[in-house]
Amino acid sequence: MIDPVKITDPTVEEDTQSEALLMENSHQSKFDVVLLSVRRLLKRGAMANLTNLINRLHPADIARVIMHLDSPQERQTIFELVEGIPEQGQVVSELSEEMIPQVLEDRNAAEITWMLRSVPADDVAYILGVLPDERTQEILPLMKAEESQEVVNLMAYPKGTAGSIMTTEFLALPEGTTAQEAIQRLQQATKAETVFYIYVTDPNEKLSGVVSLRELLVVAPTTPLKNMLTREVLSVTVDTDQEEVARQVATYNLLAIPVVGDDGRLVGIITVDDVVDVIREEDTKDMLKMAGTAEEDAEMHRSSLQAVGLRLPWLFTNLVGSLVSGFILWWFRFTIQEVVVIVAFIPVIAAMSGNLGLQSSTLIIRGLATGRVDLSDIWKVVSRELRIGLALGVICGTLLLMVGWAWQGSGVFGAVVGGALLITFLISASLATVTPLMLKRFKIDPAVAAGPFITTAMDITGVTIYLGLATMMLEHFR
Amino acid sequence: MIDPVKITDPTVEEDTQSEALLMENSHQSKFDVVLLSVRRLLKRGAMANLTNLINRLHPADIARVIMHLDSPQERQTIFELVEGIPEQGQVVSELSEEMIPQVLEDRNAAEITWMLRSVPADDVAYILGVLPDERTQEILPLMKAEESQEVVNLMAYPKGTAGSIMTTEFLALPEGTTAQEAIQRLQQATKAETVFYIYVTDPNEKLSGVVSLRELLVVAPTTPLKNMLTREVLSVTVDTDQEEVARQVATYNLLAIPVVGDDGRLVGIITVDDVVDVIREEDTKDMLKMAGTAEEDAEMHRSSLQAVGLRLPWLFTNLVGSLVSGFILWWFRFTIQEVVVIVAFIPVIAAMSGNLGLQSSTLIIRGLATGRVDLSDIWKVVSRELRIGLALGVICGTLLLMVGWAWQGSGVFGAVVGGALLITFLISASLATVTPLMLKRFKIDPAVAAGPFITTAMDITGVTIYLGLATMMLEHFR
Repeated sequence: MIDPVKITDPTVEEDTQSEALLMENSHQSKFDVVLLSVRRLLKRGAMANLTNLINRLHPADIARVIMHLDSPQERQTIFELVEGIPEQGQVVSELSEEMIPQVLEDRNAAEITWMLRSVPADDVAYILGVLPDERTQEILPLMKAEESQEVVNLMAYPKGTAGSIMTTEFLALPEGTTAQEAIQRLQQATKAETVFYIYVTDPNEKLSGVVSLRELLVVAPTTPLKNMLTREVLSVTVDTDQEEVARQVATYNLLAIPVVGDDGRLVGIITVDDVVDVIREEDTKDMLKMAGTAEEDAEMHRSSLQAVGLRLPWLFTNLVGSLVSGFILWWFRFTIQEVVVIVAFIPVIAAMSGNLGLQSSTLIIRGLATGRVDLSDIWKVVSRELRIGLALGVICGTLLLMVGWAWQGSGVFGAVVGGALLITFLISASLATVTPLMLKRFKIDPAVAAGPFITTAMDITGVTIYLGLATMMLEHFR
Repeated sequence: MIDPVKITDPTVEEDTQSEALLMENSHQSKFDVVLLSVRRLLKRGAMANLTNLINRLHPADIARVIMHLDSPQERQTIFELVEGIPEQGQVVSELSEEMIPQVLEDRNAAEITWMLRSVPADDVAYILGVLPDERTQEILPLMKAEESQEVVNLMAYPKGTAGSIMTTEFLALPEGTTAQEAIQRLQQATKAETVFYIYVTDPNEKLSGVVSLRELLVVAPTTPLKNMLTREVLSVTVDTDQEEVARQVATYNLLAIPVVGDDGRLVGIITVDDVVDVIREEDTKDMLKMAGTAEEDAEMHRSSLQAVGLRLPWLFTNLVGSLVSGFILWWFRFTIQEVVVIVAFIPVIAAMSGNLGLQSSTLIIRGLATGRVDLSDIWKVVSRELRIGLALGVICGTLLLMVGWAWQGSGVFGAVVGGALLITFLISASLATVTPLMLKRFKIDPAVAAGPFITTAMDITGVTIYLGLATMMLEHFR
């Protein structure tokens, strides 16, 4: 078993044991312990121990260590300790966009080309896509003509499409191939990291079906593939949105889904491990969008300055929106000055309706992403949220009525605060449900605008309704 | 290719064509179109067309249709139209917890047992786990002794552990088996839905390594498995948290991960398609927890009453918290009555610091879930968020200073609102970063408390700091 903390060098052994104790006490993960050791050894300059430790890790873990280090120098130091060119290539393919140019900075084009030889074409396209253009132009001519053509093709697909995440390494054989020939082809295939299925194509290179490896073993060796293939195969096109690909692979429990070009020819496959990355990435994007920042902000190594740039637009929108709320408060200043206790219920109305809206919109946005909610459910969903908003509004409104009544000894005052809460709850529930559904219908990402928009809109409407009601009450009972 | 809207019955054809037009206009998905057709045909009572439509769908899509219908009667009607007992079993295994007892209500124990015969043991355990106890007790004795024992064992693992999501259908062979024998075993295996690897065990039934199907084909037929196996195999134990399993499978791009019991014996495997479900489920949970509701609320068929129960606790906490904010406002009533414009900046301070906190905490919670943030990064992360908070506080504070100054013609007043914003930003950034990390360290789910806690805490501190500063200013300049 791969065990990241099983280290034989005696010096490191000591370190590890003390940290193993630490782990039991404070529930740190094994990875945290490795990271602590790497940082400590870097500080001590204990290169022999560091080499030992690093080369016992899985390439994905080495990449993770590199991404958690603070300076480009440290990242380069660790990367240089990775033994073996193919291993270095694997580490590079697991790094994030910004890290790749950093660790490859001192390497010449020939070295990088050598490193990429062991990396699948889709990962090569990713790596070359994030290197400076002039480096890419140096590297491409050094690759085998066939491979560089494939990489160039892959780099042409826009980000977020099936084409951009597919691999071109799959086994496709003509319908007439026999089971035995297929097994021979399988034995010769070198880069066949992802063989779960053999794809069978007709004379026009169009996908006619799949054969699983297991089926190949069960039939007589002379059986042609066309007699054993499963013809009902789901496929996507190169332009299909990666989120849609992920949804299909997840729904139908697929290991891989074939990708066809505009002409119907089989051009690649997307494997489930890439789908896992897409799902995590899309879900992260949704959550960050709702909080008013972007995917790039999740990369902790990005500079604070970039994060400021990403977060500022939403905070600025919020500044304007809340100044509007503030202006409405000021507009009602005579009401407030006359009955100052009115001010005490402003945070309640604003916060509560904002939160109810957040609950509804999160539910819808999440439901749309996972497929639990569909556009055809719109009325069902809206009426459900309205019923929930009504029930919660009645409960919380009644509580507020009693608080207001008890505090001010006035049932009318209690009714104003309770009633205002109920009304804002109903508006909040409808707005928070309809907005993401409408955005989705017009092909705008529901997560983008729903969070910020609803919070700001609810602050303004909540305050207006409450102070309007309070003013009416004052005028009536004056 | 499976095409959910390719329908041959002429009556339905008509329906579908009009809806295909609809689809192009309003960007509805194919599934939405199917759902609309099902609803329409149900209303018309067009059972022949409905049978035709339903039996062209993938079992996962039939389950999805059932889960979107409104009444238990409709759900049962559709379920009864599914042709073939094995197909019915597959549909049941894709349904959510609440739906299963509904669709199986009229079936006797023998029928259900027959249905479950084609369903893998882990799904059987799931189905029996959600049926009423007395039904389960009727069904278990009707199953083959060996299978029912396996199901009972699986049902004993607590929800959320590796044991509860693993399948017991995998191929494990002793080290001495030859490649040829292994291929024969593979050919005999009936329920081997998930054979990507052959697991090789030592004489004590402990896992000694894996052999891929491809490797089996490449070696001489007499080679024993022990000469070709990969010994470095990651594994988890039955108690491992499902989120940790998901992280390992995702990080190392695995197709399946073996699960060992407390005695080190191989007891099951978890395949990547189950991991995809876990990731979606865990991410949904996190998002809903941050919005103050629970996973169950995401199931749209749950009654509104249940949703009210799930959302009320957080709204109630929020009610108390915002009443505290309100009380603080009331406490400072003399300040407010003296300079009523102070009230206009309350929403700005409260909303802005709440939003900055939401950005920081979402980032940390998400980072912890995806592994981008580790506990050992704590100081790095806190200092990054503080720097960002400082920069954003200076920018937004300066803007606010200018607004305050311009409005009131008083630099001091501008400085109070700008300064208050800066201070609350710094507090918000620290609190929002440290809280989820602390919760994680004490093994509490960071998503549970971070959202609600931070919003409420920031409302209270923001208001106190702002009004405190404003009062000090008034006393100074009186």
